[in-house]
Amino acid sequence: MEHRLEQFSQYLKEANVDAAFINSTENFFYLTGFHTDPHERLLGLLVFPEAAPVAVLPGMEKGQIRDAGWTHEVIGYADHEDPWKMIADQMRENGNTEIRTIGIEKQVLSYGRSESFIGLFDNVKVEDIEGQLNEMRVIKDEQEISIMKEAAELADFGVSVGVDALAEGITEMEVLAKIEYELKKKGVSEMSFSTMVLFGEKSGQPHGNPGDRRLKPGDFVLFDLGVVWKGYTSDITRTFAYRSISDEQKVIYNKVKEALEASLAISKPGTRIGDLDQTARDVITDAGYGDKFPHRIGHGLGINVHEFPSMSHLNDGVLKKGMTYTIEPGIYDPEIGGVRLEDDVLVTDDGSITLTKTPKELRIVE
Amino acid sequence: MEHRLEQFSQYLKEANVDAAFINSTENFFYLTGFHTDPHERLLGLLVFPEAAPVAVLPGMEKGQIRDAGWTHEVIGYADHEDPWKMIADQMRENGNTEIRTIGIEKQVLSYGRSESFIGLFDNVKVEDIEGQLNEMRVIKDEQEISIMKEAAELADFGVSVGVDALAEGITEMEVLAKIEYELKKKGVSEMSFSTMVLFGEKSGQPHGNPGDRRLKPGDFVLFDLGVVWKGYTSDITRTFAYRSISDEQKVIYNKVKEALEASLAISKPGTRIGDLDQTARDVITDAGYGDKFPHRIGHGLGINVHEFPSMSHLNDGVLKKGMTYTIEPGIYDPEIGGVRLEDDVLVTDDGSITLTKTPKELRIVE
Repeated sequence: MEHRLEQFSQYLKEANVDAAFINSTENFFYLTGFHTDPHERLLGLLVFPEAAPVAVLPGMEKGQIRDAGWTHEVIGYADHEDPWKMIADQMRENGNTEIRTIGIEKQVLSYGRSESFIGLFDNVKVEDIEGQLNEMRVIKDEQEISIMKEAAELADFGVSVGVDALAEGITEMEVLAKIEYELKKKGVSEMSFSTMVLFGEKSGQPHGNPGDRRLKPGDFVLFDLGVVWKGYTSDITRTFAYRSISDEQKVIYNKVKEALEASLAISKPGTRIGDLDQTARDVITDAGYGDKFPHRIGHGLGINVHEFPSMSHLNDGVLKKGMTYTIEPGIYDPEIGGVRLEDDVLVTDDGSITLTKTPKELRIVE
Repeated sequence: MEHRLEQFSQYLKEANVDAAFINSTENFFYLTGFHTDPHERLLGLLVFPEAAPVAVLPGMEKGQIRDAGWTHEVIGYADHEDPWKMIADQMRENGNTEIRTIGIEKQVLSYGRSESFIGLFDNVKVEDIEGQLNEMRVIKDEQEISIMKEAAELADFGVSVGVDALAEGITEMEVLAKIEYELKKKGVSEMSFSTMVLFGEKSGQPHGNPGDRRLKPGDFVLFDLGVVWKGYTSDITRTFAYRSISDEQKVIYNKVKEALEASLAISKPGTRIGDLDQTARDVITDAGYGDKFPHRIGHGLGINVHEFPSMSHLNDGVLKKGMTYTIEPGIYDPEIGGVRLEDDVLVTDDGSITLTKTPKELRIVE
């Protein structure tokens, strides 16, 4: 983590930010190596251009951040103490008193906490530091990629458990329970979002909720799931047909697959991100299903399951080596049901590879 | 939900707040009846002293909020649209133009979103409306209590599954997986926080993480878990001994039980909230374990698993009929292990009942 902290301090120096307060659990983890969710209690990391960083967290987690390898200062506060006062005291004691510009994560830090932090100083200017952290996090290093491969493999495994569990009359929730049970036995303590198992017409809702819908022949079966693994996420979607498939279902399936493959084919360093969306959208629109693909093609993937960048057709950024993101086109019909296919993608030297490996060929599960 | 909206509009009128923007998924659910988590996308509810409320959410969830019974206006935006501009347009079209004071949830709304909202108006004053919503939510109505009883019953069931799963050599994660599997089969789609199953010395960490520690005779076994059920949460902790128990473990267990019972005995309308903590703390301190009880006695419970009020010894508020909260004293020793017992409590006319029903008598599981 030390080189990340140095890089971030260097940025603060160049940007003339005198003190930055990191509040998101994700950026805190990225810079400290310690993953924790203190719920409504304050978690923070103070970073300065010159002085050493200081972690701020509930006192009872002090031992854990040390175990995670944090060697710098820690402000551990009790429930009845005011951590902001302790921050002010620490900065005064360490001679960090010339603060004219502060940096915060503007989309994360609450208005109330920003008032508390701003209130420690006289007339400070507030800068957003999230962009810099996004730029750092968007390129994954070798260790991150190796963890994300493991996370993707666990997502593939989850889908295979789901497929094996399919049986006429089983409910969505029963299949979901089996998937998470087998993943937990492999040591997965957290899914990266609420697992989705949707049958038949319910797969036609892009954001449907699994329930007691029972599986019957002719249904689409849509799985959308991922795990949190060593602090990193995966996110896979696969759709299967159960026992039989109609001609129109087949057309829909193959168009979504073609859209994903078309996007993947242009995914390499230098590609405009918006073109990933546009390429997939053109395939679906040309087939007459344009109005049934109501969401963006994907999102950055890493410590957060949805992170920078947002892959909409408006994104003028370009792909770079080491970026990891999802491609997930879909076609949704409220009666026929829906198909979505989603891979986790890593941009390589001259192209891309998918971290998720479950085949995308149309499969009719018996 | 209609009477809650009316009550909140009435408050805005009295407080001279011209427009409130609710951003938390919890308060959004409380006022609309629709539970959704749009991740990084904007979710909001505009409430006015006179005009009808307006929900703001991703366009693809428009159908779902209608299904949930929302009859007022909805601004559904696409990923490429600017919802803040749509909010400004809506307010202009509806003649909501005299805005001098706006209300936000200061501890929830990000600095960035508050900038966007504030930026729609000229020179507005910003008020915190969270206190009013806390005051409304802290008293549960009959329907909420009936759901919370079901949620607590599911938590009790989770503990019983965990106890049945105990066997020499089993790991914490294996037991955890069985608990969540059985709960999912009952239709629970989300736990209210990461389930905790801790064996032996690991139970001595108030915030320990389940892993591959294997169960052996003489271990304490600590379960801390809860479910989200119809939008409401439960949260139970029970500690058991496995096969045998030492004299000191027995003392620790019984002191924690005594502390919980002492707090529960004074829980009724009019009791100072801080006294619940102090009463339990006195029992534990008098027994010489004061430094091994490093957290507050509990927290409000409802739509959030940790909600208003925070039950520390400093809280000068008083209990009222219809409040629901947790009592959860603990004693933690890094070598012997720890004991925590936690009940979900409902304040009644003249006392309290626990919603969680798993017995608290010391139990040695064979």
